[in-house]
Formats: sequence, C-alpha cells, structure tokens
Amino acid sequence: MNIRDEVRKMKAVAPYAAATDVSVRNAVLAKIGETLKNNAEAIFAENKKDLEAADRNGTPSAIVKRLKFNEAKLGDVLKGIDQLIGLPDPIGRKTLSRELDEGLTLNRITCPIGVIGVIFEARPDALVQISTLCIKSGNCAVLKGGKETANTNRILFRLIYESAVAAGYPEHSLLQAELHNEIDELLACDDCVDLLIPRGSNAFVRYIMDNTKIPVMGHADGICHIYVDRDADPEKAIPIIVDAKTQYTAACNAVETLLVNREIAASFLPKLAEALRKEGVQIRGTAEVTSIIEAETIEESDFWEYLDLIVSVKLVDTVDEAIRHINRFGSHHTDCIITENGETAERFMQLVDSAGVYQNCSTRFADGFRYGFGAEVGISTSKIHARGPVGLEGLVTYKYKLYGHGQIVGDYAAGRSQFHFRDLL
Amino acid sequence: MNIRDEVRKMKAVAPYAAATDVSVRNAVLAKIGETLKNNAEAIFAENKKDLEAADRNGTPSAIVKRLKFNEAKLGDVLKGIDQLIGLPDPIGRKTLSRELDEGLTLNRITCPIGVIGVIFEARPDALVQISTLCIKSGNCAVLKGGKETANTNRILFRLIYESAVAAGYPEHSLLQAELHNEIDELLACDDCVDLLIPRGSNAFVRYIMDNTKIPVMGHADGICHIYVDRDADPEKAIPIIVDAKTQYTAACNAVETLLVNREIAASFLPKLAEALRKEGVQIRGTAEVTSIIEAETIEESDFWEYLDLIVSVKLVDTVDEAIRHINRFGSHHTDCIITENGETAERFMQLVDSAGVYQNCSTRFADGFRYGFGAEVGISTSKIHARGPVGLEGLVTYKYKLYGHGQIVGDYAAGRSQFHFRDLL
Repeated sequence: MNIRDEVRKMKAVAPYAAATDVSVRNAVLAKIGETLKNNAEAIFAENKKDLEAADRNGTPSAIVKRLKFNEAKLGDVLKGIDQLIGLPDPIGRKTLSRELDEGLTLNRITCPIGVIGVIFEARPDALVQISTLCIKSGNCAVLKGGKETANTNRILFRLIYESAVAAGYPEHSLLQAELHNEIDELLACDDCVDLLIPRGSNAFVRYIMDNTKIPVMGHADGICHIYVDRDADPEKAIPIIVDAKTQYTAACNAVETLLVNREIAASFLPKLAEALRKEGVQIRGTAEVTSIIEAETIEESDFWEYLDLIVSVKLVDTVDEAIRHINRFGSHHTDCIITENGETAERFMQLVDSAGVYQNCSTRFADGFRYGFGAEVGISTSKIHARGPVGLEGLVTYKYKLYGHGQIVGDYAAGRSQFHFRDLL
Repeated sequence: MNIRDEVRKMKAVAPYAAATDVSVRNAVLAKIGETLKNNAEAIFAENKKDLEAADRNGTPSAIVKRLKFNEAKLGDVLKGIDQLIGLPDPIGRKTLSRELDEGLTLNRITCPIGVIGVIFEARPDALVQISTLCIKSGNCAVLKGGKETANTNRILFRLIYESAVAAGYPEHSLLQAELHNEIDELLACDDCVDLLIPRGSNAFVRYIMDNTKIPVMGHADGICHIYVDRDADPEKAIPIIVDAKTQYTAACNAVETLLVNREIAASFLPKLAEALRKEGVQIRGTAEVTSIIEAETIEESDFWEYLDLIVSVKLVDTVDEAIRHINRFGSHHTDCIITENGETAERFMQLVDSAGVYQNCSTRFADGFRYGFGAEVGISTSKIHARGPVGLEGLVTYKYKLYGHGQIVGDYAAGRSQFHFRDLL
C-alpha cells in the first residue's frame, strides 16, 4: 500500500464525508456497534493471538492489561458508541450569522477538519473510540495503532470500515496504517492531511512534531505539579497527592513534582513521606527537603517526568514562587494547588499557564471522560485550536458562507454602500 | 538586542498581561490613541523620511500609497482603537461550566494565547492595528514590520509601548524587531513564542512555515476562484468578476481563476472579455477558451496566483467539476459561485473546502473589517484554530479550571463515587 495515494483519495472524499447528514453518521455508528457485537468471538480470538505474543515476549502485566480486549472492554466501547450517537451534531452549527448589509449575509458554520491522522498506543479500545469520534464529527481518518495489538486492530478496523461504508459513509474515508515506516510516509503528506494527533511516549511525540509540516495536536511532556500552600488542609493534600502519583503512574496527568510551602514543610513533609512510602513511592528532594525527610537529593533544576513511582519535592516561599516554577519547568498540562484560601487559589489558577489549573483535587481528573466529553482523542498542551482533553469539539473547524446579490467591494470602498453589521443570532 | 532574551522576559510577564482587567486594557488603548493623536506631527515627520527613501529607491506608487501615514490614516487607526475599546472583552468568558460531581466544578475560561509573533508588510497602520488587537486580547507581541516604513514604525512602536506601560500593561509585553536577521532568531524561540502570524508574499510565508516549530497561522497562497454557473445572472457575474480581479490586485482575496460552465461559455465569455479588457486585465485560457475569445493559451493544470491584472479561464461541465477543480488546485482561501439556483449554490458552498465560500458577491469581501470584526491580524487558510479573517477571537485560547474539595480519581475508578455531569450554563 502506498500511503500517499490512499491519503489523496481520502482528501478527495473528505468534503463528501463532511456533507453526510447526522442521521447517516449516527446510523453508521449504530451499524459499527452492532457489527462489533455480532463479531465478538472473532475479535476475542484475534486478541488472544496478541496476548499470546505479548506473553512470549515477556510483556509486563501492566501493559498486557491495556492490550486485552474482552467482554468488559467491548461493553465499554459499545456504551461509548451509544453515548456518541446521543451527543448533538458538532457540525453544521451556526456560530455567527450577520447581515453585513441589506441582502449580504455572513454565516459561520462548524464543519469537520477533514483528514486527521491519529497515531496511538497499543489499546484496541482506543481504535474504536478514535474512529467513532472522527465519524461523528464528519472527518476522515488515518489510524495507526501500536504493533502489540496488530491482530486485534486489523479485525476491528475491517469491521468498522466495512460497516461504515455499508451504512453510507464514503469509501476511502478511513484507512489503517499497519507498518511503522508508513508513519514517515504519513508525515510527508502535508498537502492532504489537515491534522496529526500523536499519542505515546515523549520521545515519539517529539519525533512526530519535529518531522512534519502538518499541524500537530497533543502533548509530549506531562510534568504536572501539585503546590501545597501554607493554607492547605493536609487531610485533603495527602490523599490527593497519593492518588495523583499512584492511581496510574504511566499517565500524562500523574503528578511529578510537589512544591511545598516552606512554612508548613516541617509538619507536612513527614506525614506525606509516610503516606507515599506506604504506596512504594520513592521521594527525591532538594537539599532542604532531605534535611527534613529521608529522600534522594536532587538539584534545584532537576525536575522530570518520571511516569513511575517517583516524585520530586521542592520548597517554595510563596504561591508566586510556585507559579514561577511551574510556568518555567512545567509542561502546561495540569497543575494543582492545595489550599483553603480562595484568593490564593484564584491567583494560582489565573497565573499558572496550563491547560488545566485545579484546586483541591487530583491532577488525574484531566481526561475527556471525566470532563464529560464522552471520549477524547487526546490531550493537548498546545495554546492553539484545542487545549486540554480533546473531544468532538476539537475535531471541528468552521467555514464562512457569504450570500450576496451581486455586491462588489468597490461600492463600499467608494462609499456608495455602507455596511450595517446586524447580528441575526 | 538579543531576541531570545527579550522574548523570554516576555514569556515570563505574559501571565500577568493575561491577568489585567479589561478596564486596564481599555485604558491602555485609550492612552495609546491619545498619545498617537498628540504626537501626530512627529509621526508624520518620521513617515516623511520613509516616503523620501521610497522616492529615492523608485518605489512604485501603489506601494508608496501603503507606506504613507497621514491625517486620514491616523484618523482611521484612531477610529479603529475606539471601536476596539467598545468591543466586549474576549478573555475571561466562561464557555463551559459543569458540575462533574457534588462539589467538583469544571469551568472553561477564555484566555490569551500568550506570546504572539507578527511579521507584517510595510504598512504603519498595520502596526497600530496588530498591537492594539493583541493588547485588547491580553496577549504579548513581538512585532516586525516591513523595512520600508522603519522610521514610522520606530516612533509608532515607541509611543505605543510607552503609553501601554504608563497605563498599566506590563513592561516587556511588547517588543519591536527591526532587523531582518531577528526574524530567524524569533523563529528559533519555539519554547517561548506560542503563535506566529506571518503576512506577506507567498515565498516569505512559506519560508516562515518551513523554518520554525512554532505554530503558524496565516496563508501562503490566495488562489481564489469564481465559478460562473449555467444559472448565473451575467448582470451580476461581470461586475463581481471585475471587482474581484481589479479592485485591489495585490490582495490575497483577489480572484485568480474563473471557471465557466460550458453551456453558457459561448454567450458569456465575449461579454466578460470585453469588460475585463476595458480594465486592462489580460486573459489566459485553456485551448477551448481561446477558441471562443482571444486569450493567451495555458495548459489544463497551469493555474497560478498572479496578484496582477491577469486571470485564468477554464470551462467545466458541472458544478461538481468546478468543486473538484477548486479543492484540488485552490488554496482553500475564498471561492465564489455565481448562480441564481439556490440548490446549486448550497452544493458548492457545502463541498468546496475553503475558509470562505460565497454566492453572488466579490471574493474581496474576505476581510476582518468587512466581516464586522473591527480589525484582523491576518487571514488563515489553516484548518485548525482560526480560519478565514482572524480578529480578536483568533487571539484567544482557553483553560480548564477545576474546583474540588479533596476528590481523588481512585474513588471514581473503584465506583465509590459517580460523576453526574450537570451543566451549569
């Protein structure tokens, strides 16, 4: 398969996918759900091959858990598809309607982005979620999943694509890339791919960002912070920190750095250390921290994304010092303040320049499902287009439609006509 | 001056610029307007130096017109500033408010993008418009204008920056780059510049897009089309085409290619040719076109952005052939159909994949002022973030603020707590 040729075909059909009525797109989703359900055993059989291969390769059990596609996971994705069907149509919405002059009306209408490339980790449920989000939003998609679930992906993709076309979504609207070298071919398609969404390791996402002219949405780092203010309630702080660090260490929204107000350090740090050690978390701290609790010493600028049971601790004098540290060393993903002081919280949440700024809750809430978006295609730390967890809204753009009756700009430039700008919405 | 050092300072103050109240930002704008007015003579004196230099260099009169900054141009920018003060605050708006669970509330709040680099053509009024749009939206900006207006830019920037700081906008929030090599330094600041907006020639914008990792908003090409349908009213078609081609040939929204329905070609083309020749427009056509009217022959795939009194003409059989041609050879900027048939128009406007799709009016309407946005920082042909003319709305992003009382994800994962997703807006 030549990726470029296939993506050019996709680009040509994208306007027709964009023009499908929401009733067709919902019927497509229903058909996909039905087909997956009717082929459950065949899917599980393919998944078994992937699990056996993982076993042969000695894949760690935490990862095997993500590869598995069983009744429960199928149930979840079917529920997700049903939810998606129930969501309002994200495209065709009028977000501006303005009479520029008599008989000259401007409408701004939401529409799909077009051709989206998504490269994601080895999780079969992700393939279903991403493809159905793209269909609901009228987009075309090139999907490349992790090789560890190649067999499961292959059957899922085939069932999804065949159902979609049978129910009225255009041919060539979805494509599965299976080979790693096809990623590089995809990166070169800047004339026919409108957006790339890479998910995966920091190094992988950076590779994508550095090797394509296609706009990229996503995040490389996830260095999330929790700042424990002098007005923090330790009864809230400790469970939040334990959850943010240990509930799922490999997640981008897990906490990596704790900033603790110097005033409360002597009383708070020993309690914190005890709670973290109980969960097997290794603490690294600046020299000052190691004078209060036992911890491996790190330098003042030595803050990393561990994605492991390790956390860095540093002391600060004020909320402003915490803000400066986070804006300088953070990755603008999700950062939290623990405080009972509303004014301090507001200052932190205003001045920290991150997609998510939290008060008194775990950074692990940064997720499309937990925000009520139904699903997400990824989390963006970019400042443009979409920020934070990205659901359907992040997969649409808009176009301006201007309806006239022969109007020309020369008349307005010469003052023979005047705009009156009357909003109709 | 070291651009990188200056931009790092800007990045550090950006959250504080973002936190300024709209009353401060409006006072800053008012102060800028007042200062420009009070220093009109000094500004005109500097502009005279630029005009004299242009004269010495034999700059064409069309360009000199853009360099000129006189009473009329000052009046226009002052009026623009007043309009900007009157516009609602684009930041701090709540665009989503959702109770995820009891005592766990998610708000999505619009906020500035942060640090924006704008590189623009030699037009002093552009410097004022861009800087004031950035201030109204709480952004920081690096501004690099065309060298032909260096003297005018220098005094305008100094007056704007001094007024802004005097009225409460942070120091280091605005920076003027004056040397061409500073553009390359700016392009390398991908860790501290959030968005670049280049304006200028196709080659220049492509150079920017190809030489930076910073997201770029703008357009390189502007190959706009007008399709004259078989149901077109020639009384509308001809003045629209003449306006779209000749009202301002150097603009990105000027028409470059005409697609004419084969059915009406024999009767329409001679009238069109006569009208265009009267305005000095040179016609280039496919072989078939040259068999009907006198025109220079071009190949079937030979369609360019002329930015001059030249237009290409090609015949098509159907609206769908026109759509396919535009989607393949166009630049997704602004494309128009001339037809009295509403259904045909809707098909065209649905399927043409461009930022602006028009019926029966000139492509030259694609402009922030004419859309009623007050001003524009540029026109985007990208599919993400902002599309078409970009005003204040294109200069903002959003952040998610989550307020909790100690909630942790572990409780939801284990089923001890459930989300209830209640929208509060």
